[in-house]
Amino acid sequence: MTAKSQTNWSGDPVELLRAGEGFRLADVDPDATPGYTGGKKHGQVDLRAGADELGELQERLFAQSRIVADTPAVLLVLQAMDSAGKGGIVRHVVGSVDPQGVSLVAFKKPTPEELAHDFLWRIEKHVPDAGFIGVFDRSHYEDVLIGRVRSLASPEEIERRYGAIVDFEKRLTDRGVRIVKVMLHISPDEQKSRLMERLERPDKHWKYNPGDVDERQLWPAYMDAYQAVFERTSTPNAPWYVVPANAKWYARIAVQALLLDALEDIDPQWPAADFDVEAEKRRLAAT
Amino acid sequence: MTAKSQTNWSGDPVELLRAGEGFRLADVDPDATPGYTGGKKHGQVDLRAGADELGELQERLFAQSRIVADTPAVLLVLQAMDSAGKGGIVRHVVGSVDPQGVSLVAFKKPTPEELAHDFLWRIEKHVPDAGFIGVFDRSHYEDVLIGRVRSLASPEEIERRYGAIVDFEKRLTDRGVRIVKVMLHISPDEQKSRLMERLERPDKHWKYNPGDVDERQLWPAYMDAYQAVFERTSTPNAPWYVVPANAKWYARIAVQALLLDALEDIDPQWPAADFDVEAEKRRLAAT
Repeated sequence: MTAKSQTNWSGDPVELLRAGEGFRLADVDPDATPGYTGGKKHGQVDLRAGADELGELQERLFAQSRIVADTPAVLLVLQAMDSAGKGGIVRHVVGSVDPQGVSLVAFKKPTPEELAHDFLWRIEKHVPDAGFIGVFDRSHYEDVLIGRVRSLASPEEIERRYGAIVDFEKRLTDRGVRIVKVMLHISPDEQKSRLMERLERPDKHWKYNPGDVDERQLWPAYMDAYQAVFERTSTPNAPWYVVPANAKWYARIAVQALLLDALEDIDPQWPAADFDVEAEKRRLAAT
Repeated sequence: MTAKSQTNWSGDPVELLRAGEGFRLADVDPDATPGYTGGKKHGQVDLRAGADELGELQERLFAQSRIVADTPAVLLVLQAMDSAGKGGIVRHVVGSVDPQGVSLVAFKKPTPEELAHDFLWRIEKHVPDAGFIGVFDRSHYEDVLIGRVRSLASPEEIERRYGAIVDFEKRLTDRGVRIVKVMLHISPDEQKSRLMERLERPDKHWKYNPGDVDERQLWPAYMDAYQAVFERTSTPNAPWYVVPANAKWYARIAVQALLLDALEDIDPQWPAADFDVEAEKRRLAAT
């Protein structure tokens, strides 16, 4: 992978961060920077270099989709506890590519209309079009995370949902959507300090919600729910990646590396013209 | 305006570019850089400085909308002949702000379902939410531009649409949507050279459409249609701005300046907390 060969990666984050067979969330150190030998300053430099690469790959993917039927799409799913840095990923990683090729959806608490349908109904509508990088800021996984922790659905219904998610994602990947699922993993102490900063800075008050403390008090239950998510829905076609996120700079280059890997795997190509180039040059010259 | 006082603007683009009473498109030189004393390099530096300012204002606007009912929105409408640089505006001006606060819509040829409704039906659905910067890449103005030039509707229907647009936009501005309508104005020669470049570079072929030459041959009819648009729909609440765009760098800083003006006029403020900050600090500290 070009990004890594030119940079401070000593290992492949795709391998190191994947939640595979036997994965245990409790074993992940949120302070770690797996596979990366540099520090914050190196990370910032590498993020900029990776942004250029991501931009070029995204443009190729978008270009290909304008001409070639069945061009793939990429879907980045972001899940995390409050303040773990989803917004920073959107701003600093996704925000570096041309907005014309990005479709970003922030899923909030479901509306009454959404609740009157199956939990995947509102998700399906936002599956990215061919050639796009879709980003889900929260997702259908809320329905097996807060849904389980807060008992918003019965245990049988939660069980059903794991299977429904696997089937749904298989249908997407079969149709050419490359799914990259990321959990940003912070420690309870780190969350405390980030929430406290939001309380101490008037320009951050709007990001704070008293409900954040209520959720925080259910931390162990949330970790159990995430563990179950990884065991039940981390499939070879749509694996989960757990990204240590106490160091924001690391989380950003790691998610960027996962996106770069997905795009390099697609290997999009500038599409051939679907018109006669020389004839068009003559037509244009005559105007 | 901060942006201008620190930079190479000698005049106010908001005044210089507005299509007011007696405006004639034929009098605008697409090569000009009204109000700007610097060259391309200065423009690039100023664009970066303006991006920081735009990012800060956008974040304030978004923050305010999370707490304060009836926070305004901004809607940037982009219209132009092919290759005039709409994509570059989206990428380099809009692309500099946090994607979480932007809603971008590229309007294509209407679908049969859209054609079965009034021309504003599909537009209404994409009016930006409070706190967002909405961007229309093409818009309802297509229905009085190509609609008129290609006689896709009767002259009476085109007449009706001018009035409908003015009423529609008044309704939006009355509800707090600040509308910034921009026509990027290039010369026929500049377009020829940009289209030829797309034909000469295989990585640009996907951007070329043989129909572009057909539209190009109707240039005078399009200019007449734009002139009619300015006369009929450039209102005090929702004025048109005609931005000379042969110099891409100028078009970008000019559109950025128009957006900055709209946001400075809104003057968004960090919202006050809607909870007891000290009580929350104690609750959080106890966890």
